[in-house]
Amino acid sequence: MLVETSHPGNIGGVARAMKNMGLSRLYLVSPKIFPSAHATARAVGADDILGRAILCNSLGDAIKDCHFVVGTSVRSRSIPSPVLTARECADLVCRTSSEVNVAIVFGREQSGLTNAELDRCQYWLKIPCNPAFNSLNLAAAVQVVAYELYIASVGSNSKNSELNLLASAEQLESFYGHLYEVLSHLGFIHQAKSLSIMRRLRRIFNRVRLETTEIDILRGVLSAAQGKKMPRKPN
Amino acid sequence: MLVETSHPGNIGGVARAMKNMGLSRLYLVSPKIFPSAHATARAVGADDILGRAILCNSLGDAIKDCHFVVGTSVRSRSIPSPVLTARECADLVCRTSSEVNVAIVFGREQSGLTNAELDRCQYWLKIPCNPAFNSLNLAAAVQVVAYELYIASVGSNSKNSELNLLASAEQLESFYGHLYEVLSHLGFIHQAKSLSIMRRLRRIFNRVRLETTEIDILRGVLSAAQGKKMPRKPN
Repeated sequence: MLVETSHPGNIGGVARAMKNMGLSRLYLVSPKIFPSAHATARAVGADDILGRAILCNSLGDAIKDCHFVVGTSVRSRSIPSPVLTARECADLVCRTSSEVNVAIVFGREQSGLTNAELDRCQYWLKIPCNPAFNSLNLAAAVQVVAYELYIASVGSNSKNSELNLLASAEQLESFYGHLYEVLSHLGFIHQAKSLSIMRRLRRIFNRVRLETTEIDILRGVLSAAQGKKMPRKPN
Repeated sequence: MLVETSHPGNIGGVARAMKNMGLSRLYLVSPKIFPSAHATARAVGADDILGRAILCNSLGDAIKDCHFVVGTSVRSRSIPSPVLTARECADLVCRTSSEVNVAIVFGREQSGLTNAELDRCQYWLKIPCNPAFNSLNLAAAVQVVAYELYIASVGSNSKNSELNLLASAEQLESFYGHLYEVLSHLGFIHQAKSLSIMRRLRRIFNRVRLETTEIDILRGVLSAAQGKKMPRKPN
């Protein structure tokens, strides 16, 4: 998934890199220019990937059916978080059931993903590189990640998997919305600090890779907290 | 090392990919257009690498001080050979002494390296990828290889190394020339079949990564074969 890509040539380069590594499902979130002759030219023989690319208006739209969302970033932020290398990410994806929809999200050429977008990802991925010159070209970054996915998929027998159904990104967002509501209701978070506290909470739950049934349980707890106090045990 | 690159934009993309991964020594063998505004634009902040790029007229010139030359190829040829994956190559390079000059050679965008050029390489490197769509963009290929080199160099303590002096590419070529001369002299190879036989022999010796002193010994043998029969042991 590419978010607000400025240069259509990069979209073509990404399509070629994907096809080279056996990937085919390209999502474009509000690209500046698409379709474009520049994209087709850079795609070379991968214009079929461009032709089947799915256009979305927001990242939320794009990931709504995904269960495992990885955001790419070169920035280091203050909050400790599950940051994966490209190789760790590929290994994790290969250990995930093939029924699970995985999204790897790449941001804008100049500014990457916003904090709000990164918050919607369960994991962050950072490509290890020269710290003094760490901004990779978009297509080059996709090439490295796609390459690692290919290597991991060839290496693994891709038979072991998580058969439990992971919660989708949409389910997770509903859960976070619910959580925010309840925490506000409880007076636990105040407007001014809500962002940083929610971010820390997301980091915790995102790391868990919640299953649908677990979300149900958590939301049951939240509903209970909203509605009434838990019944006391009789002495 | 890039051989006869057609598109200057690719040279810029290669410079950026190299700098991202901490590499700096770019060799250009007869590039079609260089310097070029396209190259500088694609290099973004890596124009220092372009500025220090070394221009050569032939691959032989470029590799003459190298001890370990790897050629990249997507073609599979009939002769079994030491073909490395990008990762194996990176591991091998990291296990090599830092005093050894290593060259990784990338061919033309359309046609890659010629057989004659590949013959001058001790190893071949192939980036694993989708066999149905295996032609990577030049800068993308360099990105993957440079990334693997970076990962391997960060991972290794890069302390163990081969302290013995590996033979240079020039020394190897002289040896092959000498070998050819001797084999012709002996009537072992005929004009018609010489290419394929020499290729098989190169594959053998290239795999060994000969040291200078070993070349001396082999050439001593060749000289002996040329000059006179080995003295017989007395019964």
